[in-house]
Formats: sequence, C-alpha cells, structure tokens
Amino acid sequence: MIVLFTDFGLEGPYTGQVKAVLYRATPGVPVVELFADAPAGQPKPAAYLLAAYGIWFPPGTVLLAVVDPGVGGNRGAVIIEAEGRWYVGPDNGLFELVVRRAADARTWEIPLRRGPLSASFHGRDLFAPVAAELARGELPSQMPREPGIGRHGDWPDDLPEIVYIDHYGNAMTGLRAALLPAGGRLTISGRVLRRARTFSDVPPSDAFWYENSNGLAEIAVNGGRAAEALDLVIGSPVAMDS
Amino acid sequence: MIVLFTDFGLEGPYTGQVKAVLYRATPGVPVVELFADAPAGQPKPAAYLLAAYGIWFPPGTVLLAVVDPGVGGNRGAVIIEAEGRWYVGPDNGLFELVVRRAADARTWEIPLRRGPLSASFHGRDLFAPVAAELARGELPSQMPREPGIGRHGDWPDDLPEIVYIDHYGNAMTGLRAALLPAGGRLTISGRVLRRARTFSDVPPSDAFWYENSNGLAEIAVNGGRAAEALDLVIGSPVAMDS
Amino acid sequence: MIVLFTDFGLEGPYTGQVKAVLYRATPGVPVVELFADAPAGQPKPAAYLLAAYGIWFPPGTVLLAVVDPGVGGNRGAVIIEAEGRWYVGPDNGLFELVVRRAADARTWEIPLRRGPLSASFHGRDLFAPVAAELARGELPSQMPREPGIGRHGDWPDDLPEIVYIDHYGNAMTGLRAALLPAGGRLTISGRVLRRARTFSDVPPSDAFWYENSNGLAEIAVNGGRAAEALDLVIGSPVAMDS
Repeated sequence: MIVLFTDFGLEGPYTGQVKAVLYRATPGVPVVELFADAPAGQPKPAAYLLAAYGIWFPPGTVLLAVVDPGVGGNRGAVIIEAEGRWYVGPDNGLFELVVRRAADARTWEIPLRRGPLSASFHGRDLFAPVAAELARGELPSQMPREPGIGRHGDWPDDLPEIVYIDHYGNAMTGLRAALLPAGGRLTISGRVLRRARTFSDVPPSDAFWYENSNGLAEIAVNGGRAAEALDLVIGSPVAMDS
Repeated sequence: MIVLFTDFGLEGPYTGQVKAVLYRATPGVPVVELFADAPAGQPKPAAYLLAAYGIWFPPGTVLLAVVDPGVGGNRGAVIIEAEGRWYVGPDNGLFELVVRRAADARTWEIPLRRGPLSASFHGRDLFAPVAAELARGELPSQMPREPGIGRHGDWPDDLPEIVYIDHYGNAMTGLRAALLPAGGRLTISGRVLRRARTFSDVPPSDAFWYENSNGLAEIAVNGGRAAEALDLVIGSPVAMDS
Repeated sequence: MIVLFTDFGLEGPYTGQVKAVLYRATPGVPVVELFADAPAGQPKPAAYLLAAYGIWFPPGTVLLAVVDPGVGGNRGAVIIEAEGRWYVGPDNGLFELVVRRAADARTWEIPLRRGPLSASFHGRDLFAPVAAELARGELPSQMPREPGIGRHGDWPDDLPEIVYIDHYGNAMTGLRAALLPAGGRLTISGRVLRRARTFSDVPPSDAFWYENSNGLAEIAVNGGRAAEALDLVIGSPVAMDS
C-alpha cells in the first residue's frame, strides 16, 4: 500500500497526477490519501503529525510525504526506512520525528537528476516514481548516508503547539497523550482544559482534551468546533499543567 | 463494492484510515466515497439522504454509513440487510428510513468488544472491519434482533427540511419528489417555488425546485447558488402547497 | 486509465456515483480525479485548463470531462479522439482547445437516448457509461462527424485570463508559458509581475509568474496566496508586455 501525506489538496490536479504516476508504475497497489491538508508549507508541525499517523500502518507500507516549501531550491530528497516502513519526501525535517522515535532507521539521499523534473512539482516527478519503486520491492541501490546528517536536534520530542485542525474543528497538538499525566490539564488560549475519554463523556458545548485515535492530545468541544470556539490555528501554543 | 457515507471529510485522516482498513481486509474490492459531507453529527437528516441514495446501488453493495455523534457512548452498532444491500453503522436512527421503506429488512447488533477499539473512531476500528467481512461474503453468525427494536417511529416518512447542501449550493430536501403533486409548489424562506424539469428550463437566476437525479425534491437557482440566495442550512423547513 | 475532469466536487455524491458506474463497468481500470473543481459551469476557461492538463496523460487514456451548465437542455454530447487520447463530455466548447491543438482529432456525436437518463446528471447516466466502453476498448460504431461542426473559432489560441485558482491560492492563466517571451512580464490587477523559475528563486511575499508543471503561466506569491493578495478570480484579465 502507498499512503499519501501531503498539503496538495484533493480537488485540484496535484493528488490526481501523483496517483496517475503511481497507478501506472505499480498496477494493483492501492493508494490511500491519509492527509491532503497537512500543515501547508510547514514541515515542522507536519513532522509531528506524520510521526503519530505513520506508525499506524503495518511494516512494508510506503508513505509518500510531501510538505515542501523549498521545492526547486537546494533542499535534498530522501528515502527513510524506519521500523520496516518506507518514507519518501523532501529532506527538510519532515521525517525528523519518524527517525527520532524509531528503534532503527536508515536514510538514503535521492539524486535530484533522475529524468525530466519540473521546478515546482517534485511530488509527481521525483517522489512518486521513487515511492512506486519501493512499492514494487526495489530497494535503494546506493549506501545509506551517515546517521546524524540532516537532523533537527533542536526540535523537541513533543511539540506543545496545535499541529492540525480537522474537518470537525478539533485541534490536534504535537503532544503524545500517553506521556501526559493521567489527570493533566492543558492550557490553551487562556483556557484550562481537563481531560476526558471522549465526546460523550462531556456536557454539550464543553471544551476538553482527550487522547485521539492515533495517540495525540486533541482539543475538542462536545457538539462544537474547538478551533473557532477557542480561536486556534496551526502553531497556537499549548501549556501543560503538571 | 463498498460505499462510504460519512461526515468524515476527505482531506484529513479519517476517510484514508477507513480505506486503508478496507483495502487490507478485502483486496481488490473497490471503495467509493458517496458522501464524505453528510450532515455532520445529525443522524436524522442524514437518514433521509442515505435512504434516497443507498437504493441507487445494486443488491450486494455494502454501505458503510457513519454519522455518529454518540461514538464512545452507549449507542449500539448494527448491520442491516435491506432488499439485498448491506448497511453497517451506529444504531442511532441513521438507518430508520432505509428499514422503513424496504420490502424486507433484518437487523443484527454488532458486539462492541471485538478487538482494540478507540473511544472516538469506530468507523475505522469497528464498522470498517465488519463492512470488509460482509464484502467478503461472510454473513452475520448470530440471529437478527426482533423487528421493532431501535426504531424511530415518530420520524415522518418524508422530512420537510433541507437535508443536504451540495457543492453547487443546491439544497436537497428530505421529500421524495414522486410523492408530491405534479404542479406542486414548495415554500421555503418565505418564497414560493414552482417545479421545473431542470436548470435549462428556467430563466437565469430564477429559483425553482426539481426532482434531482436520486428522486429528492431539490431547491436550485439557475446559474446561482440557492443556499446563499435563499439563506438555507441543514434543517431549514420546507412547506408543501397542495 | 480513466481520468475525471469535472466541477462536481469530491465530498458530495456526484464523483462517487460516477466512480461507482465506472468501477462496475470496467473492473480493474484505475480512475483518477484530476480536477473536481474545474471552473464551475464555465466551459470556456475550463477548455484551456483541460487542453494543458490532458496532454500530460499517455495515449490510450480516457478523459471524462464534465463542465456542463446546459445539462438537460439541447446541447449535444461528444466523444473526441485527439492524438490517441479519448475525451467524453458535453458539446459546449469544453474540447475546443484540445481539438484545435491536436495534430489529428475526430469527433463523434453521442445519441442522447441510450437508456434511462436523468435531466440533471449526464455525467453519471450518459458520459460515464460511454467512457467505460472506451476504456474497455470499444470504439464508436458510427462515423465521425464532419470537421468544423461545433467549433468555437472565435475563442483565442491562448486565453489571457485566470482559468483556475489552486489549493495554495496560485492563479493559473490560460496562457502557455512557452509562447511568452523569456523575459516577458505579465500585468494583472494593476501589478507588473516578472518571471521566475520557481518559488525559492523569489524573496518571501514577492509576487511573480512562472511556468507551472503543466506549461501554463501561473501567478504566485512566495509563501503567500496570490489569489487573495492580488484579488484574482476566474476570469480576471491578464496583459502581456512584449
């Protein structure tokens, strides 16, 4: 299975052209759009989202991940193998948390000259063909690069910020809920929120936080839209009470 | 074929994770997103929409239908077989009109403990695996429950309200057009609208109603957006002239 | 492969029903949504977009293209074969630039009475079944119509207007960049924009134009949304400096 994690949107031509490349190169391999609205042009919050959602897939999955504001410039391109999953995308920090949290991970650099390459759409012209090769079982032929290159050691292990706002207006943080104290509270936009198990455990219109279905601490309002109610955007800071 | 009828949206992770579960469990079975923007958290209008659109599919189709504001609470989960089609989803009224209008229908309850189950995403963790079993031809092994349990007898046969606003701004009602008088008028937002066959039979910018391609009475404006022009939302009441 | 180019949107029922028809009629043939947000109800700008993106696909591809404000009226329906690609859709100018730019092209008229046909959804009831036949290798059985019928000779070879605004707020023109002078400037909304290779060659927040990944001149702002910054909509005029 090939999984797409991008900021391309679905209705315009970008996801469709990537899928056309994949379907031609790996007939019969399913392609799933996981996120088409990852934080646009922001690899850092996207990295925490990708790390939380990528590990939900079984080993062998190929994740094509493109949040790539530097496309056409001098940023590199990489293949990552982490705990049996393959990731392909720009070398801009997007895979930092995937690598950091993996028991084992290797990184290969992708040469930027592999054929006709547009200046603005490496998702279609560079990353999709590489993802298709991996999905067909073709392994990188060169040596992995030295560990430690291209790392973002200054990024925290968990990001106390909003990293994604979903279709319902719920706001995901870059914090893994399992690492927070059981009765911990989160402060956001001046509001102190208690933890709940899920929506139906909270009175209507109450704001709370909970461990979402992929392990992230998520801000929500029962029957409402947390992002609007609490004025949240990607990057809004979250503070943890101890 | 497995058909998705949800309020999950497409761009975020929910539809993608459901599709990943289905593709793994039933390789080669196509998955079609019918609605990803069913009335959010509102099983009642969604029930009239599902009843109108579900019967368009041939017998044997599996419809995974999730509009589920009570997820994680004590609402049940069901499989419905109605005129040869299978429906899977929450037991909250979403299938009321499917059952009521079917010549034959049976309902099975799905035990809530079938494996790891998140508190907030039964679409992925509970309903998708069941839909995959049905698509593989595995029938429910227990007995159907007694008819009459879990029914919403107080809901009308047709709902005189807006149940869906589409991409073009057209507003679908919960009324089956075939049951309305041929020359009938509909009153909405204080406007009396006449019936037309389709857009091109009406002067530009005129509001009208017509039988849409799945049999619902739909409010439209030729060359315009009815929802904005007439200030319509899900739940706006419609009155029938006789 | 069958490629969808429509103004149907993705979340509502239209794309899903079309895909259901295609999957049933041509099992195993991939279906790709190229555009679901082509200029709504505007065949003229859509024609320039389709001509630019259609030729990216290899010969043998079937493109189901529906931007069809006259559905249910007396406009015709056509199959086009142009340089080995097949196009199916309404006979309203949508294929004018595909035909005009092709070294060879033939057009067949589709009889409007082929079976049950809704008045408002020919994409599902008429065009999708025809696209499926072509994807199965079934050729039109009647004779092509005379060249010259149904042409829009008054439309320019390139359209100096915005024809599409993408997910990032970039605005595509109907101008092929390869035909513009290398150092040419474009004037839009009173601003004179210089050409750049791509985003990363331009200071943050600067507006510019560039040749996009399918050859159209596209207006962009590095790190911003050009459509909002320059107040652009479908139809905004663009002037070329020589």
